[in-house]
Amino acid sequence: MADKRNAFYAQSGGVTAVINATACGLIQAARERGDAIGKVYAGRNGIVGALQEDLIDTSAESDAAIAALRHTPAGAFGSARYKLKKVTENRAEYERLVEVFKAHDIGYFFYNGGGDSQDTSHKVAEISKELGYPLTCIGIPKTVDNDLPITDNCPGFGSVAKYVAVSIREAGFDVASMAKTSTKVFILEVMGRHAGWIAAAGGLAHEAEGDDPHLILFPELTFDEESFLARVDECVKRHGYCTVVASEGIKNAEGKFIADAGTRDAFGHAQLGGVAPALAALVKSRLKMKYHWALADYLQRAARHIASKTDVEQAYALGRAALETALAGHNAVMPTIVRLSDDPYAWEIGEAKLADVANVEKKMPRDFITPDGYGITPACRRYLAPLIQGEDYPPYKNGLPDYVKLRNVGVPKKLGTTFALG
Amino acid sequence: MADKRNAFYAQSGGVTAVINATACGLIQAARERGDAIGKVYAGRNGIVGALQEDLIDTSAESDAAIAALRHTPAGAFGSARYKLKKVTENRAEYERLVEVFKAHDIGYFFYNGGGDSQDTSHKVAEISKELGYPLTCIGIPKTVDNDLPITDNCPGFGSVAKYVAVSIREAGFDVASMAKTSTKVFILEVMGRHAGWIAAAGGLAHEAEGDDPHLILFPELTFDEESFLARVDECVKRHGYCTVVASEGIKNAEGKFIADAGTRDAFGHAQLGGVAPALAALVKSRLKMKYHWALADYLQRAARHIASKTDVEQAYALGRAALETALAGHNAVMPTIVRLSDDPYAWEIGEAKLADVANVEKKMPRDFITPDGYGITPACRRYLAPLIQGEDYPPYKNGLPDYVKLRNVGVPKKLGTTFALG
Repeated sequence: MADKRNAFYAQSGGVTAVINATACGLIQAARERGDAIGKVYAGRNGIVGALQEDLIDTSAESDAAIAALRHTPAGAFGSARYKLKKVTENRAEYERLVEVFKAHDIGYFFYNGGGDSQDTSHKVAEISKELGYPLTCIGIPKTVDNDLPITDNCPGFGSVAKYVAVSIREAGFDVASMAKTSTKVFILEVMGRHAGWIAAAGGLAHEAEGDDPHLILFPELTFDEESFLARVDECVKRHGYCTVVASEGIKNAEGKFIADAGTRDAFGHAQLGGVAPALAALVKSRLKMKYHWALADYLQRAARHIASKTDVEQAYALGRAALETALAGHNAVMPTIVRLSDDPYAWEIGEAKLADVANVEKKMPRDFITPDGYGITPACRRYLAPLIQGEDYPPYKNGLPDYVKLRNVGVPKKLGTTFALG
Repeated sequence: MADKRNAFYAQSGGVTAVINATACGLIQAARERGDAIGKVYAGRNGIVGALQEDLIDTSAESDAAIAALRHTPAGAFGSARYKLKKVTENRAEYERLVEVFKAHDIGYFFYNGGGDSQDTSHKVAEISKELGYPLTCIGIPKTVDNDLPITDNCPGFGSVAKYVAVSIREAGFDVASMAKTSTKVFILEVMGRHAGWIAAAGGLAHEAEGDDPHLILFPELTFDEESFLARVDECVKRHGYCTVVASEGIKNAEGKFIADAGTRDAFGHAQLGGVAPALAALVKSRLKMKYHWALADYLQRAARHIASKTDVEQAYALGRAALETALAGHNAVMPTIVRLSDDPYAWEIGEAKLADVANVEKKMPRDFITPDGYGITPACRRYLAPLIQGEDYPPYKNGLPDYVKLRNVGVPKKLGTTFALG
């Protein structure tokens, strides 16, 4: 083993507008600490790259390219929806990781992801100890779902939150001006299969009575068709129109997703519905009102052009903190965001044990939703508002964001073996 | 009749990110020319406000509020989807307009809209002459569809174009990073029922081989299922994934809109489909690939946060030009954008006769679409590229765009009559 051991960094799960800012922070910090650490290898397509010994040599990228990661959305090295099995079920996966790390003298494991990834980081830390292979394992938070415990919030979420709040405000202005002779109801469907954090963020645009959105539909509450229709009707009577932010995860009283409607399309194929078109059709048939709907899908989590400055700064800081905490000798931990005050918002970097993070999901508190179930409370607004503060515009070229595509040069393989994914 | 006669301004049809910039230019110019012109009255909800004598006194708004219109999307006075009938079918509508204008000493008629509105302006000019009522009629171009003749482009289009190009680039980065283990095909549905201008704008993000979007579906061409699937399949094999920008207006060989799929939703109601979910289902069933899709709907035309600076400047300049040309005594005309050069882009204000604008639709030239039907040509890029140049960010407050809501104070009615809309 050399003095200066190498690091492995991987992006995991659904990407965000700022996960590359975390990569930027980590790699820049590593370059500054060339005295203490070797190269940073990234997994091509996340952990899959580690299992298949398909590593990217980030030292082949220029400083300018690495700096540009800060303003580039999505996962520059490729991410993966690949969850390692339990150690008891597929120990070979963990042993393979250690084998690859050993071959490339990797002494640091950085895993940038959500709840599952933190759990994996925790297991990798335990296995490497058991196998007697010295490996510092650091989880780095990332998820638009904002459901990791301990940390004040999760990088990626603030930017989706800003996108959703900006979008519903803009669409609301549009509908308000058309409502007299045209569209009366507008529905924006947003991400959040299990938690209403993203839908709640839409509520930030509702700063005064009558502001958009008028209604929010949370997955935490049962969707009630009659109550919803009555509220829409009342809203149109009062304001002339009604704007709705609906979480993709809302369910009816039978526990069935409204989005899993089993619709058939033009070609006769079963169609994965959307919540928005289903609600729109309901509004049309029952209230006979003209509607429009939008489904932002990936646009919301990739929208680096309207990223929250707070989010970018935190994502970047967590990348740097991950590297520093590893070099300080901490192991099996995850750097976190600690909120010091709401207004003015102040935060610092903290640290949580992976054992405390793994398999714990942060739910939205019920008292963040208004008693009637269609809005957010002042407590929720206090929590969310700082997370969308500030703009951090990318540079533009030819009228378009100038995002970087890395060279992603592979590290020569040292093992003669292949590994079949589970 | 007083020396200084008043003006009437109305917004018409679907609103845009920059139609208020036109209103801003017109009202600011009128305020500067207080020597020559009286008040600017706006129609509440467009022409409907004129027919119902529901006028807004813009002089009740502060200079700051009027200035803020420049960065506020949608129609600040309300717009209307209301098309006046032919003079031979409903002459009463035109006579009513003249009656209302006479009552409020309105000597200038400014109508801010698309093709139908220019046609209306033209008719109002003819009728007022016929009735011996002196009225200067000026059309001001506005439409995201970009289908007005003579003018180089239409205010509102450049900003939608920028939104679509930015969005497909961002979503493309997202899909590229997920494709190894997850989503292979992404479809973004955009506006454009009859013309592919907006879909074509997505092609601006495709600056080099492999860039997003990989395929564009134009309403000008017949959608061919087999050809489309073959291209998607080939693209995934080559690049690992495939991104598609689809116009809402694509039709099959029978001339049926792919979007009018006659799907049924969760509640058993007929559902106005979208092109994107229909294509996604096709990809899933035939190619067995994982897909995602987005439908931006109003978000695309309301997205003032990512408006094209060129578009904002032109919209504003046309508002000023409309006022100035009216005061110069021109009648039955529409100020236009005249392109002087592509690169560097240079333009100036020109003027067209309403008679030449009315009922003429500018189609996308066939040679703007590549021979294979799935991309844009260099000629198309030369035309489109300048229109998305520059950013013109609105001010932010609490992390959100600080858009203005006007007071919209009504002008006291002078007529004792009501008017039933046709």
